Amino acid sequence: MASESGKLWGGRFVGAVDPIMEKFNASIAYDRHLWEVDVQGSKAYSRALEKAGLLTKAEMEQILRGLDKVAEEWTQGTFKLNPNDEDIHTANERRLKELIGETAGKLHTGRSRNDQVVTDLRLWMRQTCSTLSALLRDLISTMVDRAEAEHDVLFPGYTHLQRAQPIRWSHWILSHAVALTRDSERLLEVQKRINVLPLGSGAIAGNPLGVDRELLRAELNFGAITLNSMDATSERDFVAEFLFWASLCMTHLSRMAEDLILYGTKEFSFVQLSDAYSTGSSLMPQKKNPDSLELIRSKAGRVFGRCAGLLMTLKGLPSTYNKDLQEDKEAVFEVSDTMSAVLQVATGIISTLQMPFRQAHEASGKAVFMAETKGVALNQLSLQELQTISPLFSGDVSRVWDYGHSVEQYSALGGTARSSVDWQIGQVRALLRAQQA
Amino acid sequence: MASESGKLWGGRFVGAVDPIMEKFNASIAYDRHLWEVDVQGSKAYSRALEKAGLLTKAEMEQILRGLDKVAEEWTQGTFKLNPNDEDIHTANERRLKELIGETAGKLHTGRSRNDQVVTDLRLWMRQTCSTLSALLRDLISTMVDRAEAEHDVLFPGYTHLQRAQPIRWSHWILSHAVALTRDSERLLEVQKRINVLPLGSGAIAGNPLGVDRELLRAELNFGAITLNSMDATSERDFVAEFLFWASLCMTHLSRMAEDLILYGTKEFSFVQLSDAYSTGSSLMPQKKNPDSLELIRSKAGRVFGRCAGLLMTLKGLPSTYNKDLQEDKEAVFEVSDTMSAVLQVATGIISTLQMPFRQAHEASGKAVFMAETKGVALNQLSLQELQTISPLFSGDVSRVWDYGHSVEQYSALGGTARSSVDWQIGQVRALLRAQQA
Amino acid sequence: MASESGKLWGGRFVGAVDPIMEKFNASIAYDRHLWEVDVQGSKAYSRALEKAGLLTKAEMEQILRGLDKVAEEWTQGTFKLNPNDEDIHTANERRLKELIGETAGKLHTGRSRNDQVVTDLRLWMRQTCSTLSALLRDLISTMVDRAEAEHDVLFPGYTHLQRAQPIRWSHWILSHAVALTRDSERLLEVQKRINVLPLGSGAIAGNPLGVDRELLRAELNFGAITLNSMDATSERDFVAEFLFWASLCMTHLSRMAEDLILYGTKEFSFVQLSDAYSTGSSLMPQKKNPDSLELIRSKAGRVFGRCAGLLMTLKGLPSTYNKDLQEDKEAVFEVSDTMSAVLQVATGIISTLQMPFRQAHEASGKAVFMAETKGVALNQLSLQELQTISPLFSGDVSRVWDYGHSVEQYSALGGTARSSVDWQIGQVRALLRAQQA
Amino acid sequence: MASESGKLWGGRFVGAVDPIMEKFNASIAYDRHLWEVDVQGSKAYSRALEKAGLLTKAEMEQILRGLDKVAEEWTQGTFKLNPNDEDIHTANERRLKELIGETAGKLHTGRSRNDQVVTDLRLWMRQTCSTLSALLRDLISTMVDRAEAEHDVLFPGYTHLQRAQPIRWSHWILSHAVALTRDSERLLEVQKRINVLPLGSGAIAGNPLGVDRELLRAELNFGAITLNSMDATSERDFVAEFLFWASLCMTHLSRMAEDLILYGTKEFSFVQLSDAYSTGSSLMPQKKNPDSLELIRSKAGRVFGRCAGLLMTLKGLPSTYNKDLQEDKEAVFEVSDTMSAVLQVATGIISTLQMPFRQAHEASGKAVFMAETKGVALNQLSLQELQTISPLFSGDVSRVWDYGHSVEQYSALGGTARSSVDWQIGQVRALLRAQQA
Repeated sequence: MASESGKLWGGRFVGAVDPIMEKFNASIAYDRHLWEVDVQGSKAYSRALEKAGLLTKAEMEQILRGLDKVAEEWTQGTFKLNPNDEDIHTANERRLKELIGETAGKLHTGRSRNDQVVTDLRLWMRQTCSTLSALLRDLISTMVDRAEAEHDVLFPGYTHLQRAQPIRWSHWILSHAVALTRDSERLLEVQKRINVLPLGSGAIAGNPLGVDRELLRAELNFGAITLNSMDATSERDFVAEFLFWASLCMTHLSRMAEDLILYGTKEFSFVQLSDAYSTGSSLMPQKKNPDSLELIRSKAGRVFGRCAGLLMTLKGLPSTYNKDLQEDKEAVFEVSDTMSAVLQVATGIISTLQMPFRQAHEASGKAVFMAETKGVALNQLSLQELQTISPLFSGDVSRVWDYGHSVEQYSALGGTARSSVDWQIGQVRALLRAQQA
Repeated sequence: MASESGKLWGGRFVGAVDPIMEKFNASIAYDRHLWEVDVQGSKAYSRALEKAGLLTKAEMEQILRGLDKVAEEWTQGTFKLNPNDEDIHTANERRLKELIGETAGKLHTGRSRNDQVVTDLRLWMRQTCSTLSALLRDLISTMVDRAEAEHDVLFPGYTHLQRAQPIRWSHWILSHAVALTRDSERLLEVQKRINVLPLGSGAIAGNPLGVDRELLRAELNFGAITLNSMDATSERDFVAEFLFWASLCMTHLSRMAEDLILYGTKEFSFVQLSDAYSTGSSLMPQKKNPDSLELIRSKAGRVFGRCAGLLMTLKGLPSTYNKDLQEDKEAVFEVSDTMSAVLQVATGIISTLQMPFRQAHEASGKAVFMAETKGVALNQLSLQELQTISPLFSGDVSRVWDYGHSVEQYSALGGTARSSVDWQIGQVRALLRAQQA
Repeated sequence: MASESGKLWGGRFVGAVDPIMEKFNASIAYDRHLWEVDVQGSKAYSRALEKAGLLTKAEMEQILRGLDKVAEEWTQGTFKLNPNDEDIHTANERRLKELIGETAGKLHTGRSRNDQVVTDLRLWMRQTCSTLSALLRDLISTMVDRAEAEHDVLFPGYTHLQRAQPIRWSHWILSHAVALTRDSERLLEVQKRINVLPLGSGAIAGNPLGVDRELLRAELNFGAITLNSMDATSERDFVAEFLFWASLCMTHLSRMAEDLILYGTKEFSFVQLSDAYSTGSSLMPQKKNPDSLELIRSKAGRVFGRCAGLLMTLKGLPSTYNKDLQEDKEAVFEVSDTMSAVLQVATGIISTLQMPFRQAHEASGKAVFMAETKGVALNQLSLQELQTISPLFSGDVSRVWDYGHSVEQYSALGGTARSSVDWQIGQVRALLRAQQA
Repeated sequence: MASESGKLWGGRFVGAVDPIMEKFNASIAYDRHLWEVDVQGSKAYSRALEKAGLLTKAEMEQILRGLDKVAEEWTQGTFKLNPNDEDIHTANERRLKELIGETAGKLHTGRSRNDQVVTDLRLWMRQTCSTLSALLRDLISTMVDRAEAEHDVLFPGYTHLQRAQPIRWSHWILSHAVALTRDSERLLEVQKRINVLPLGSGAIAGNPLGVDRELLRAELNFGAITLNSMDATSERDFVAEFLFWASLCMTHLSRMAEDLILYGTKEFSFVQLSDAYSTGSSLMPQKKNPDSLELIRSKAGRVFGRCAGLLMTLKGLPSTYNKDLQEDKEAVFEVSDTMSAVLQVATGIISTLQMPFRQAHEASGKAVFMAETKGVALNQLSLQELQTISPLFSGDVSRVWDYGHSVEQYSALGGTARSSVDWQIGQVRALLRAQQA
């Protein structure tokens, strides 16, 4: 009978419980990443409850000790999940109750999953963004160091992939480094908006127990508290912003990767990837494939896909918490992992990249510098003087002059002349210092 | 020194091997899903090599036995991955060699990772799409059965979410079922294009050993062979098409979910979700949240995000194989899992959904039918006759007449009159039968 | 006072009419493209009304003559829009009434904007897709002709943008042509689903006047009628499919463009764009920028953006007509225009592209052919014989042998050997003939 | 012959010029929007040239007068485009030459289209963003005013679209207003990055004539100059950021629209749209469709589509200027127009929205206030006292108590208690004042 089985109509059997629905609904497979911040948030909340007179001091201490024990189990890998632990919050709560008994239930007084979940996510992202920020500055820093060390290397600049004007290799490096400084700046802005506390917003209408949210904020070291409980529990701007930040940053890295893939072809032959970042081909042993660069280029698609996916999920949703918002976490975790790997791999690539024709390219740059230092025109340098720079100089040096002379004329700020490149290096370093502060 | 460490410039240390790059590059964490089709493809290829005189019969049999052993280990969960097994193909190949020695190496004669990988993916997707096709037809079938069983229930039709014209509940069900039949049709078209064999295309230029690709096709039961080796190894149209198929199908399901979420509000109160597909709230026990429907609605975003991500990855890529294409598999696996869950959950929801006011809504529908059967006008039915249908009929039945009369006037094909609804049911069932064949 | 001005709260003044809202709401600026199909649909509908006895023959003829007059005014550019003509349907209706008086109103009997609009759009797209189909086949055909004419030209094949194996230039052309045949196939499938008639579905519940939809279908030459009125008036699958078709096709063209941009660099120097498809630079006169190819590559983004936009608009929408659907038309018009231009420009590019080193590349291919014809091994050809092919042959011809020999070993179907390339040409031509039918 | 016609292979005829390519390439149809900023940029550049000694004072003045004349012609609608004016820069330059002769050519000294185009776009966007900023603050301001005026109106709060807890209507308004303040903040950040001057970057390598870029910056009132010429001429971060800003803002507005569409249904019946923002239906005169809200909701898709399109266009592009970047402008123009209309329409909607049951809803709120004022518990108010608030109070007032009491318990900051709502109003107003500064 329909009433017994729960099944009214054709289609597969469905009893009181549909195991596919259970799995569909559960988030524990990925939100366990949040175990640490969940404990952290709960500890702060129990302190606030005590201040508000809703927990005795003894109860609070019991809860804090219990939560420390939960954390210890996670750290040591001994935390055991139950089949009913559908998410990390349920799991930690259930375990706390096993450890300290009924007092555990008081931790939920006036707190809702809605404000708890979003607080945890903000705590996790705050920490992750801080790591990504540092990795990004490392990459920029590596690029600037390299630009400084190789500022005499010249090579062709392209527009429309057609040779346009000779430029310094450093100018090329800096063109990408400067783009990344904007990502670094933007990430700080996103971090500022992540660093706002929603705890104390309840399910929708706010916290009914007069919990002191300023105290919670201080306890968890947030920069500010959210203004409106309905908005606080359901807005995911900080997630969307983070995903877009990553998308734009990846677009930059995809362009740098594209350049380097081209420059590493036999036809361009400007650079050579270190073995650590390329792979051979069993069928064609002479090949050295730029896998690392291709993967970076491809991740731009994946990361943007997550951004697009979240925005589509948010579009047209009614306000306040809807289960749709559960989609936020996997996107954040995947994109964070991707960005962390990409930024480190990019740093490794830049650190180890070889320029096969560096010597030749450098010669003309050094000649320009020698002429400047001596205060003479380039064509007044003697062949002997030139050969102290490089044995590559032989009778006909006119092309070198053209090349070397060409770059130096672009001396307006931002141009490829050495003075301007040095200025750029200084500017980017100053920016990095300011951002680190 | 730079030459020893591989590190030339500032930035983190990088030796001959960068562990982050290794992990970034490896796909074994997800492409192990392909173990079975990888064995299947290799078995077919060894048979083709034997036919081409490149393997002796004894060698072929040794390889086939070895591959069966590999498969057995996977099935029994005893297959052990090595740290160097960067992808499933390497893992299976390495294990085969451990099992049967050097002969294993011959399996790679004239085959490249490029044609192997894409053959495996097509084999896997062929199987998965066939499952999804069946699940989708189950869902449609369940909807049609329900539409038939409840074709006398009337309720308001909305445009712009404003009440427009009364319609049959069945007409609403069928509006969504008909949309899904297009997805079902499209999936068959995608399956047709998945079912084309690239094996024998080598790395780029083709197979150099005269392997008989028609034989391979027959062996692996593909519908056709690919025409051009450069295209075959690098085109991922079938992946993009699959992801778009899923995106559009999810758009349909998101609209159905949206309707049902609205109809399940206290304000609309047309339907009630079974407990198996909704969850309660600890803070507000009277609430029954439509989590299952919200998750379906939200997945439309995720699935589309994967489609968008892949297209962006493909855009502007030079032709033939580039490592960027490695992005295809996670998208396919994730979207396949999502679609499988969504289709089954949707079927469960439709099967168990209750219409609280069904009785009242049904009354007018039955009255219309009684009038038709008796060949009289509605208002010629007596109150006694009406009360045999439902005790809800009392003195003033004029509103019922309006309602019931209204739906019956839409008798042109495709309208909400009962004759048209029955016609629709027949049409959709005929379609399903044709698609199943 | 609030009640007089309609303004209750702070913010700009709003009276009975908000001119910004009027403009926001109006679609006439773009849907005027539909004038012709709107007349066509109305003519068919008036005939159906007459058949159903809802118009007299005289009324129908009056309407038909009026509509012909409306069409004439559009054709001659004398149609004058009124400020109140918010869309093309209103405009045509208003004008018809001015021309023939009150009878015009009867044309709207049982027809709703909802089924009228979508019928018009399908009529327009049917025609456009047919044009795009022909343009796409022209492009493929041009590519195949060129592949046939130049099948002896060899050049390096790349994977990961690293030289991999020598291939025929024709094999490269065909790799792109074969990809486009899938687009051509998919477009036919989309056209099939566009070619389904929604007219007679009314606003939501169907047509209340017993209009004969089969007659309408025959009148307007559609392949089938829609099954469900709620679905018919609000589904935009055919739009989404069309936009995705265009997106995937553009992805293919973006890859071909990327290849050609690379091959046209000074470093690769395989091909040279005709002047008609490139532009010079005033600052750098030696440059020839591949603007046409870059524009093609970039349009992949724009077209996909329209697809993404529409899907996001559709996601989570409640069923039946909502004003949100008005977004469909601009996307369709813009993407149609873009595809038409892109396909024609691509055909022009391929038709006029020069291969600067064609002679040299061709030499080895011809030598292979001569050897085959004479039934001797390549290295048995004498230098004299070789020099009848090309003066480029001199003492050391071993590299030519390697090159020429290499391509011929890939003789399995789909490979780069001449026999296989010829087979491909035959296959693609057969496909085109089948699709044209 | 091939060499005469330029046509080598099958396909349509192509001579020296392909008219479809010309049209495909031209941007004048949309970039004419830039006429004013193009003149503005050129005037500043001519002053810089004079300072650098590259123009005499007389030449500069001649150019300035000429440019003023060009501007005058645009303003008066007398500027005549030539068929060869492919973009606005060419058009203005050509006209200037007609007006003042050869001196006009000197304006191009050291300036490239690459830095000119992007300077113009930044100038245009700076102005537009400033307008959009003001419109957005107007909307927020209107919302806050309304929230203040109606802070005693209570109504049900929903999560998962199920009734959850009673809230203040103002709390709902503020939840959307607060979301918009983040958009307002983000736009200021985008504006900061738009307001950086690229002029003086040349085509790629910089400006070769020692132009003083700080002077240009001051002249054009930019906040800073770009650091690297290669990056400056080809980065479109500010465009991507603007498009994403708009996408996220539209997501917020789509959610507000969704809420209001629901609240305006007969079933919810909380609000009623003013006639100016809804339309009737000819077939169903009782209907009032929320077209304005549906259009707002739908535009979230379109705007995001433009963002997605641009990112895809940028992905994997080699560095420096490529023609692909021409895609930036139409996206910017369309999204700017859309945002301008949406923000104004939203302000109009909020200003004129009616709450049909405001009286009833307000009663309980006022009772709570009266109790507070009198310093008594709610249930200590007499029926007479209550009836001075509203005749709706009758014998059984217990439900009103529950409702009114409920909202007041959420007094923690951010909650729905009146004190908290008032605090929110203060906070948002302070933010607006700070942003306006």
